Amino acid sequence: MGNSFGKIFRITTFGESHGPAIGVILDGCPAGLAIDEGFIQSELARRKPGQSKITTQRKEDDVVRILSGVFEGVTTGTPIALVIENTDQRSKDYSHIADRFRPSHADFTYEAKYGIRDYRGGGRSSARETAARVAAGAIAKQFLKHHGISVEAYVSQVGDIRAPHFSALDLGKTEDNIVRCPDPATAEKMIALIDAVRLDRDTIGGVVTGVIRNAPVGLGEPVFDKLHAELGKAMLSINAVKGFEYGSGFEGVKMRGSQHNDAFYREGDQTRTRTNFSGGIQGGISNGEPIYFNVAFKPVATIMQDQDSIDRAGNPVTVSGKGRHDPCVVPRAVPIVEAMASLVIADFLLLNRTSQV
Amino acid sequence: MGNSFGKIFRITTFGESHGPAIGVILDGCPAGLAIDEGFIQSELARRKPGQSKITTQRKEDDVVRILSGVFEGVTTGTPIALVIENTDQRSKDYSHIADRFRPSHADFTYEAKYGIRDYRGGGRSSARETAARVAAGAIAKQFLKHHGISVEAYVSQVGDIRAPHFSALDLGKTEDNIVRCPDPATAEKMIALIDAVRLDRDTIGGVVTGVIRNAPVGLGEPVFDKLHAELGKAMLSINAVKGFEYGSGFEGVKMRGSQHNDAFYREGDQTRTRTNFSGGIQGGISNGEPIYFNVAFKPVATIMQDQDSIDRAGNPVTVSGKGRHDPCVVPRAVPIVEAMASLVIADFLLLNRTSQV
Amino acid sequence: MGNSFGKIFRITTFGESHGPAIGVILDGCPAGLAIDEGFIQSELARRKPGQSKITTQRKEDDVVRILSGVFEGVTTGTPIALVIENTDQRSKDYSHIADRFRPSHADFTYEAKYGIRDYRGGGRSSARETAARVAAGAIAKQFLKHHGISVEAYVSQVGDIRAPHFSALDLGKTEDNIVRCPDPATAEKMIALIDAVRLDRDTIGGVVTGVIRNAPVGLGEPVFDKLHAELGKAMLSINAVKGFEYGSGFEGVKMRGSQHNDAFYREGDQTRTRTNFSGGIQGGISNGEPIYFNVAFKPVATIMQDQDSIDRAGNPVTVSGKGRHDPCVVPRAVPIVEAMASLVIADFLLLNRTSQV
Amino acid sequence: MGNSFGKIFRITTFGESHGPAIGVILDGCPAGLAIDEGFIQSELARRKPGQSKITTQRKEDDVVRILSGVFEGVTTGTPIALVIENTDQRSKDYSHIADRFRPSHADFTYEAKYGIRDYRGGGRSSARETAARVAAGAIAKQFLKHHGISVEAYVSQVGDIRAPHFSALDLGKTEDNIVRCPDPATAEKMIALIDAVRLDRDTIGGVVTGVIRNAPVGLGEPVFDKLHAELGKAMLSINAVKGFEYGSGFEGVKMRGSQHNDAFYREGDQTRTRTNFSGGIQGGISNGEPIYFNVAFKPVATIMQDQDSIDRAGNPVTVSGKGRHDPCVVPRAVPIVEAMASLVIADFLLLNRTSQV
Repeated sequence: MGNSFGKIFRITTFGESHGPAIGVILDGCPAGLAIDEGFIQSELARRKPGQSKITTQRKEDDVVRILSGVFEGVTTGTPIALVIENTDQRSKDYSHIADRFRPSHADFTYEAKYGIRDYRGGGRSSARETAARVAAGAIAKQFLKHHGISVEAYVSQVGDIRAPHFSALDLGKTEDNIVRCPDPATAEKMIALIDAVRLDRDTIGGVVTGVIRNAPVGLGEPVFDKLHAELGKAMLSINAVKGFEYGSGFEGVKMRGSQHNDAFYREGDQTRTRTNFSGGIQGGISNGEPIYFNVAFKPVATIMQDQDSIDRAGNPVTVSGKGRHDPCVVPRAVPIVEAMASLVIADFLLLNRTSQV
Repeated sequence: MGNSFGKIFRITTFGESHGPAIGVILDGCPAGLAIDEGFIQSELARRKPGQSKITTQRKEDDVVRILSGVFEGVTTGTPIALVIENTDQRSKDYSHIADRFRPSHADFTYEAKYGIRDYRGGGRSSARETAARVAAGAIAKQFLKHHGISVEAYVSQVGDIRAPHFSALDLGKTEDNIVRCPDPATAEKMIALIDAVRLDRDTIGGVVTGVIRNAPVGLGEPVFDKLHAELGKAMLSINAVKGFEYGSGFEGVKMRGSQHNDAFYREGDQTRTRTNFSGGIQGGISNGEPIYFNVAFKPVATIMQDQDSIDRAGNPVTVSGKGRHDPCVVPRAVPIVEAMASLVIADFLLLNRTSQV
Repeated sequence: MGNSFGKIFRITTFGESHGPAIGVILDGCPAGLAIDEGFIQSELARRKPGQSKITTQRKEDDVVRILSGVFEGVTTGTPIALVIENTDQRSKDYSHIADRFRPSHADFTYEAKYGIRDYRGGGRSSARETAARVAAGAIAKQFLKHHGISVEAYVSQVGDIRAPHFSALDLGKTEDNIVRCPDPATAEKMIALIDAVRLDRDTIGGVVTGVIRNAPVGLGEPVFDKLHAELGKAMLSINAVKGFEYGSGFEGVKMRGSQHNDAFYREGDQTRTRTNFSGGIQGGISNGEPIYFNVAFKPVATIMQDQDSIDRAGNPVTVSGKGRHDPCVVPRAVPIVEAMASLVIADFLLLNRTSQV
Repeated sequence: MGNSFGKIFRITTFGESHGPAIGVILDGCPAGLAIDEGFIQSELARRKPGQSKITTQRKEDDVVRILSGVFEGVTTGTPIALVIENTDQRSKDYSHIADRFRPSHADFTYEAKYGIRDYRGGGRSSARETAARVAAGAIAKQFLKHHGISVEAYVSQVGDIRAPHFSALDLGKTEDNIVRCPDPATAEKMIALIDAVRLDRDTIGGVVTGVIRNAPVGLGEPVFDKLHAELGKAMLSINAVKGFEYGSGFEGVKMRGSQHNDAFYREGDQTRTRTNFSGGIQGGISNGEPIYFNVAFKPVATIMQDQDSIDRAGNPVTVSGKGRHDPCVVPRAVPIVEAMASLVIADFLLLNRTSQV
């Protein structure tokens, strides 16, 4: 239950942090798409731990293997299975938490819901699961590229340091620095903040902004499956996410309708809007303008400090910070946000083929 | 496509603003639930237009009729169909927009997606559709009440006027004023602001906060169908919503992990947390603390002013404000937020019966 | 649960035999389809009771009302709600079975599953529910006609009287007689048999054969959603159905592979097969040949005789035959088989738009 | 699309006959079930090729590996991934059919639907896919065993040789002979027939009968998801299946209602029926009697003879029989039928937990 996402272009992921492997089946990818396996691998590299001084120093190789659905480099319309073996399992590291609940982790809730949990590295609740999303998302991205659509994300906020609005940024620069903020001056401040937090043995939150360009008019299925509702669900399903907004978002609340409304005009044979507080979506359907949204990530729950908690029997215990963890999750979350957004758009692109007779 | 919501406790809505009727089929409601038809009606009354000076003066009666699934006042396990006839259709009011696209409405996107649209009152994209949700939500609420769970919402922000945190409020006072803010002083300011905006022939946005109490531990299906991901999708599917956050939300981004983590402790035989930045949800699963979230609504797109736009042929036109509309949507959105939250919780309550062998 | 059918072109039905109304929501019907309301009504007339001396003499008017999704005679892409009021309720007829289980009916199983049942006329388990399917199927048929596809069914067997193979029949003659068998000589025998059975106050079973022509190559989604698997499920979901076979069916079991294999050849630019034991489906996907299948219906459970049974408390009771019932269900099942087949084909036609990049 | 089966207890399979591996993700298996990995392996052994002189002599080892969802031998509620590497690929065997369509295989329809196909050994359309079903089905069986439910199948017909009715058989003897018919005398005749057919370089069809005992009253979700409708779909989705019937099936067509109706009586605290033409299912819901059904398999399409066909360009060609194939599929189909039936019952068992308030 709950391990599948999408209606036509649909993924099902599996795997625990310290089990034999994680992976994903992508069903519904149309036949005839040339697959660049190197691109899947390079997307995984953007997510993997140990990339820089501001991410966890844990090493995971994340080598993906395609088990099905691709024949002579091209999709065949059958399910595409992607598997990543877990090589750096180190199960012994986790014996100290087998019996106790880490604060603001999923230990307690999994235990209560299922009566059993794989405590090694968080098991299924580990963000390791997102590698499977990134792998499938890399195929979605290739499908979207085939249709001329781009999906980009970047770090727009760390703590209270914010980047300028996306329309003022060159997103081609996102990969130029280790925090993945395309504004060099802001990036520098963000890196300094994360580094300071890390030295405090603490963690901090941040915001990732996603931008989708060249999506055709018509994506999204009202009433419940509005484009932004599915994007929101996709983002909120990512570990550590606390909020989602698109277009004007929470700030739009303060505006008047007369300011907020996006006036239509005609540019050549295209219908455009003069402003884009709608975030490229009206009535749950894309209107051809850039789609943009913000995703809030909380500070990582694992900190290198002693914390009060209880064990399974309800006795007070101390949970000590151990292992190698991220002081801030957003730099590595960028490819995950892109992956999930790509999966949503790919699905709606296919669904939209059925909207007219 | 897209007109159904939920997995087990599942609704499918239908109907256009100015068609013969709107309604909903609720499939998967367990058998044996006593239905209070008057309660469905009273929930609809909380949503209906014409309630006060700060809502639209339009009159809709919204009399619900149960066509199936209830026998001698009790659910039978078969689909429950609820229908509300559209009595105040006034189709002629809308002829002036048949051919032109209202700014920040769904006119253009529906037209592009489907090649045809029912332009009368926004057709399917009208917020009138939410009456069907409220009707089904009233049954979900009765199911939750049977299990001791309460779902409450209130207006926590209008423009930049904000109410105190929910934990400082008595939500029993929400219905005491026309803006549905349980803090009387804040309510007064909100009402004054909405009234001023209305006199400007303009509109303004707001935030509705939802609070769910006594939900058992274990609701929510990781990985993709996390409790907050489904709540988020549910809220984002409501007309005019631009954002969703739960627990610490976007503010949590600025916090350190050491502040944000919720320490576990034992209270009798219950596992509790000392703070609740998690918003009652950890790893996508309810932990027994109150679940709370914020929903951002944009200013209503229909304003009583002339606006620039284009018609279907792409020619510049003026769209004039006509009819009877809400200057601020949030007071009437309160029961809609409650309805959608109730549907989500009811569904997860049933799904959770299958989590253990 | 279980009241929806289809993935894209999807119906959800509701209603009990003696409740206020029955009906259906059709979601996913593409926009732009001209709807002939009279055709829906004429299909309902083919299913309705009281058509002839060999069907029940009960009168039901079955007037359908379109509540949504059609604007100026054309589908808009929004859900189409169809409602049929129950005018001939006669609840009093059924008081004698409120407390006892009719043999081979669903009384006992509904009671056990739900703990409650609407006993009036079988409630939800009544074949009256199929009127909703026929109404939605009539729209599916119009969609298929738009694409040049025809769906026809006829009575091919009553008791042990069988009609010749469909390829030897002119299906245009199906409506020429009251039993709906296009072979006049066979029809006469069938009618005589049913009439004799009726005079015995008994009932008898039969077979309906369905034939789909001009379906394009490529319909059906392997592995689990094979075209014949969905057709089979659709047919088996109809009341009183005990079996489904397509192509060579159960008889094919006795054949050798060398006889049974359908040799490919080329006819103009079309790939054809010289025989069609495959029934137009290979590997779960249509191959362009006529699709044909048989559906077995048991003898109607309601007979005009006294039968031994038990009541809810487990005491022995006699169930007496009362009311107006069909001595053989197949003549009226013909439009139901056509409706369900049309819904399956319409759904696969839409799904198949997503098979290639 | 179409590679998933089940609502709660849900499988998604992947893999081609000659790709790197095949496998399955089982989502929704409740937590707390002890898994006997040896049992999964022994079920695979019942399906694998090369078991006896009447099955293909091809060797496949079918070693299953559990990648997730099981921790210390017990299910955790997270998805269970099972993978079987393809060791005996021999791709070169299939070059002769890369460009031509084998009669009554899926070569042509896959090519037409997807524009591309993996021609090696039938690719995705190969019955090799069913190994994944058997692996997942073995877990379903363990879940059912935990609840006291048994699922058994056997060969009841080969060509025109039929075994006695299941109620006269001791199904404990099914594995005593290579054709898997529990009646020794019939088994001998069946084996002789298959062997004769094999020597003719031909193939023959057969019937597998399934029997489910001790299923509780209440399984099945009317209206569309009737227990027998899902069983039928499950069986019809198996390669080479042409028909499904349950209870009296196609023979029931010839009976009178007065013969066919199953009279209720009370046995201790249980409601029973004196006959069981209903096949254990009434109104789509199990009634506590044994559930039984027949599944018709056509003669295997691959025969060791030359056959006329065409190539992709439409030119006439000869397809020659090569390789190692089954002269009759039913002995190896027995565990597949059991697997699919177990998956259906497991799913309905979980769904039924939500039927009452």
